[in-house]
Amino acid sequence: MTDVAAFSFNKLVIFGVGLIGGSLARALRERGERGEATGVRTVVGVGRSSASMARALELGVVDETAALGDDVALRAALSGADFVLLAAPVAQTQPLLERIAPFLDAGTIVTDAGSTKSDVVASARAALGARIGQFVPGHPIAGREASGPDAALPDLYVNRNVVLCPLPENAPEAVERVAAMWRATGACVREMTPEQHDRVLASVSHLPHVLSFALVEQILSSPDAALKFSFAAGGFRDFTRIAASSPEMWRDVCVANRAALLDELDAYTAVLARLRAAIEAGDGAALEAVFTRSRVARSEWQEQRTAGAALGDASK
Amino acid sequence: MTDVAAFSFNKLVIFGVGLIGGSLARALRERGERGEATGVRTVVGVGRSSASMARALELGVVDETAALGDDVALRAALSGADFVLLAAPVAQTQPLLERIAPFLDAGTIVTDAGSTKSDVVASARAALGARIGQFVPGHPIAGREASGPDAALPDLYVNRNVVLCPLPENAPEAVERVAAMWRATGACVREMTPEQHDRVLASVSHLPHVLSFALVEQILSSPDAALKFSFAAGGFRDFTRIAASSPEMWRDVCVANRAALLDELDAYTAVLARLRAAIEAGDGAALEAVFTRSRVARSEWQEQRTAGAALGDASK
Repeated sequence: MTDVAAFSFNKLVIFGVGLIGGSLARALRERGERGEATGVRTVVGVGRSSASMARALELGVVDETAALGDDVALRAALSGADFVLLAAPVAQTQPLLERIAPFLDAGTIVTDAGSTKSDVVASARAALGARIGQFVPGHPIAGREASGPDAALPDLYVNRNVVLCPLPENAPEAVERVAAMWRATGACVREMTPEQHDRVLASVSHLPHVLSFALVEQILSSPDAALKFSFAAGGFRDFTRIAASSPEMWRDVCVANRAALLDELDAYTAVLARLRAAIEAGDGAALEAVFTRSRVARSEWQEQRTAGAALGDASK
Repeated sequence: MTDVAAFSFNKLVIFGVGLIGGSLARALRERGERGEATGVRTVVGVGRSSASMARALELGVVDETAALGDDVALRAALSGADFVLLAAPVAQTQPLLERIAPFLDAGTIVTDAGSTKSDVVASARAALGARIGQFVPGHPIAGREASGPDAALPDLYVNRNVVLCPLPENAPEAVERVAAMWRATGACVREMTPEQHDRVLASVSHLPHVLSFALVEQILSSPDAALKFSFAAGGFRDFTRIAASSPEMWRDVCVANRAALLDELDAYTAVLARLRAAIEAGDGAALEAVFTRSRVARSEWQEQRTAGAALGDASK
């Protein structure tokens, strides 16, 4: 449920002002501007691309920018920050945290937006050591095809799920403050352990992407590829939509979450083997049983999703 | 390309007045009614469900109906028919053809709408024997979730592909007449052998359905099923949309087309094995190569599809 209790704070520093970081900035700044009791006074964007930072400033996505390599600017940016959001590729988690640690106030809460959590937690522990309590792992489950500061939308997170994976070292108030910040964007905040997160996301997001990429790859490698593509219609379109996703992002996700992903892939391969046997045997009854179960579950899921969206619930 | 040359004929008999048969009827009858030079004078619907036949009549989808089990009515229905369309489940091909063969005029062309062709051809040969030349195998590639006579749409086939799989025994004029009939609905007619058809459809339609059903099944069988479904979002939605398809229809398709489907499934499983190895090894470069190829191919396919649709081309 969206909890729009009054929540305002002074400064947010975003590392990576693309779709994810930029949209958080816009969501919070717009609320601040509307005079609502929820919002942020200052958003500082930090990145490696000066062109991207300039664009973010120009668009009004952030109030200020700082170059990651500039000690003075970085220190100033982080001074007095309430929150830091890491919105860069997960592989940069450890280098980024090592970079900012010397300038990090004791009271600043650091959170992230990575698609995977176990690896991010390990990186954070390595970088922050005894200060790990300042890091609250998070994952806003939202996205669009577009990227960069131009893609940032103030309502990207409305009715979306944001998963927080609190660590034992996190003070409950720190977790609650991060939750409140995300709720201020219209998101619904939910909690899981990092391991649970990685399993769940492997199952309903990472594996489907791999399966979709694999189908296109398989067709490409076959003799009648052009003819096949020319006859591909609606079912193919839906099934392979996610095969148009960013190869770099999904490469990183697969490597980062490989343990959980392999578990899901192995379970999936076992189901395929069962179906193969039924198909080969012409066992219509077995196939119908599986297809019926799937259809019922998929239809119920869609209904709940539609009903939830109508009620403003974030499990959409 | 849509060829709307003048083409009119007297009588079409449709076995199965559901989405597929009903839409053909509506497409042709509406053209006849609009006074265009293309259309049919009389459409007779034949089925087993009197309620369904009554509804088709009531809706004006057909002009007349006949009960399949009624010899007198069936004989009258088929007398002087230009075309017969079999629009019933493919498993009924042989019984249906055996049923109508005694009443079939020598000049009537029989065609079908089945999702599979090799099995349909075998059934037709068994039922018609030396009269096989009267049977032109066909597959209109179109569909919607809805079924029954209420689902029939006059524009269902506009810009859609209809595949004809001419047999050696078919007179070229017979094939051309069936093609003209389908073009009159706005469809684009293409030709393949039955074997080629089954391979192509296995690849871009049948296999994706199996893979989609399999994912939902795999999640259902896992410990965190409810949690997983509650976090399933856009990628899952698109990938599993076709898992809401008719279990009965897809059971029949899988059994009917199992030879080609198994070939595609085995090729797919091999790609998955390659990806599994790359994931396990953390081989980002290998993954990125596959994902990039897939994304490029999928994007190009989408662009051609969009451009084709804009031009009114039927490879949409």
